[in-house]
Amino acid sequence: MTSWNKYFKSKRVLITGGLGFIGSNLARVLVEAGAKVTILDSLIPQYGGSLHNISKIKKQIKVYRADIREDHKLPRFVRGQDYLFNLAGQTSHWDSMTDPAADLDINCRAQLSILEACRKHNPKIRIVFASTRQIYGRPDHLPVKETHPLRPVDINGINKVAGESFHLLYAKIHGMNTCALRLTNTIGPGMRIKDARQTFVGVWIRDILKGKRFEVWGGDQKRDFTYVDDAVEAFLLAATHPEARGVVYNLGGPAVVTLRELADALVELNGSGGYQVRQFPKERAKIDIGDYYADYNLIKRKLGWRPKTNLKSALKQTLEYYRTELNHYM
Amino acid sequence: MTSWNKYFKSKRVLITGGLGFIGSNLARVLVEAGAKVTILDSLIPQYGGSLHNISKIKKQIKVYRADIREDHKLPRFVRGQDYLFNLAGQTSHWDSMTDPAADLDINCRAQLSILEACRKHNPKIRIVFASTRQIYGRPDHLPVKETHPLRPVDINGINKVAGESFHLLYAKIHGMNTCALRLTNTIGPGMRIKDARQTFVGVWIRDILKGKRFEVWGGDQKRDFTYVDDAVEAFLLAATHPEARGVVYNLGGPAVVTLRELADALVELNGSGGYQVRQFPKERAKIDIGDYYADYNLIKRKLGWRPKTNLKSALKQTLEYYRTELNHYM
Repeated sequence: MTSWNKYFKSKRVLITGGLGFIGSNLARVLVEAGAKVTILDSLIPQYGGSLHNISKIKKQIKVYRADIREDHKLPRFVRGQDYLFNLAGQTSHWDSMTDPAADLDINCRAQLSILEACRKHNPKIRIVFASTRQIYGRPDHLPVKETHPLRPVDINGINKVAGESFHLLYAKIHGMNTCALRLTNTIGPGMRIKDARQTFVGVWIRDILKGKRFEVWGGDQKRDFTYVDDAVEAFLLAATHPEARGVVYNLGGPAVVTLRELADALVELNGSGGYQVRQFPKERAKIDIGDYYADYNLIKRKLGWRPKTNLKSALKQTLEYYRTELNHYM
Repeated sequence: MTSWNKYFKSKRVLITGGLGFIGSNLARVLVEAGAKVTILDSLIPQYGGSLHNISKIKKQIKVYRADIREDHKLPRFVRGQDYLFNLAGQTSHWDSMTDPAADLDINCRAQLSILEACRKHNPKIRIVFASTRQIYGRPDHLPVKETHPLRPVDINGINKVAGESFHLLYAKIHGMNTCALRLTNTIGPGMRIKDARQTFVGVWIRDILKGKRFEVWGGDQKRDFTYVDDAVEAFLLAATHPEARGVVYNLGGPAVVTLRELADALVELNGSGGYQVRQFPKERAKIDIGDYYADYNLIKRKLGWRPKTNLKSALKQTLEYYRTELNHYM
């Protein structure tokens, strides 16, 4: 990873959702780079935040338990910060269908509140927003470029379109320094494994480590995976590169695999265990997006990013982490 | 206009924003068709609602002053209704930039609340949502088809994308009978003329009738205009045609004119008066969409709709209405 000290040493950085999977990995790298990191996290049990994720850096950062929906608290958090990595979100597609209002309040309404707080109290702050490939819906063609139409298939996707659009609009209209990354499946230490609310790979890893056969729904869907260290690097590049202002970039993975191929790789790396293939549940099939993998040439060309960690190594490091840390995430 | 009795006689119809421009014209036609009409309107002074709009039918309809943001009130309004014409909205692009949270709460959050209330309390209701051409942003090419990318240039457009998407998603996922119309500039009796919050044409008509030179900003922008009776017919068709379920249609106008041509036509019809051309104010130019006119072939082909009223006649009828009713709208 690039040496980030020259950009972040002594800089004040706010991370919303900073106890979560990607947020906490970002916090660790920023602490190493000498940044003054403040984390805002709601620690809602169904979401991604975990205090264990920051156990090794907890003395070097400030952590506030607060919910981004509490508008009135936002000004004091954004004031004086140099950077905002805006990762707080509701990530479960399924939960967005059963509690659409909560998804809207977090992924759409609170995003506008955050931007308004920045516009009024800290208009020079640099903001990177965590968007998602979910907003494309079922792709017309693969790999998917940023110009692909946005046709979200669930409430989460609709709200994330709005949240991302607000960020890009604030660059265009208010001249603010915002940008967005459309993440694909991201895996690595710190991801939620209790359930599939963040990624199905979490549940696979949990089950295989507990000696239980994991379930593969469907199996033929193609997907790409970004290792969390590579995702973190993309956030840091996007925050510091002048080209990124007002732009949205896809992240992607070094390889495209079917879920079955991924399952086989996991079993092989673990040295034991197995899985069963199950038909995609009918209710969930309605909001499934089929095959997806990203074209990440734009960020490669403009910011020099590429996913450096191959899938095998990503899976291996993730497995190794949870082999010792499993209990902290159950 | 088609005889709507066979569809609406004795049917229960709810119109949100029913004291507004299009809503009140719709209410009048529905009353003529024998429907039992209930109107919900917030009567917020900056918005489109006016009691004068329903003065001739006020004994035949029920009117409730309520705000669609009041979630808890929605179930009792939607229960037992056969149709919902969902027209309540914040329409000012400029206001959406100065008070983005209000725009979000009305055009995005409340729309989801309305749909949830219908899903839980009246899932068979037929819903037509009033969307807008604003969601396309600056067109890539003209005329604009429904498949044109959605790239809203302001907060209002972003929230309307979400509001429309929720409606279409509820058809797809929950099997509900929803559809949406993307309106272009609509003119006619009942439109707001106090200011340009609904349409700039309102202010032109107000000024010319008061003997004041009206202002044309820019002047070369191309636009299309739908007369309100034609818009009303589109709503009724969309509500009753089986093809419309889950579909979004553009409305359009019978002609495309520049704003300057429109201004000339208005002066000629009025027989006196004039206008001055002004440069588009810089702040507002940022959220201007340039030329726009719709391709309305989809609704023409599928539902048999077309704008029947030519622009001259639309302007003439509008002028005549405000010549006698001006004071009620100031």
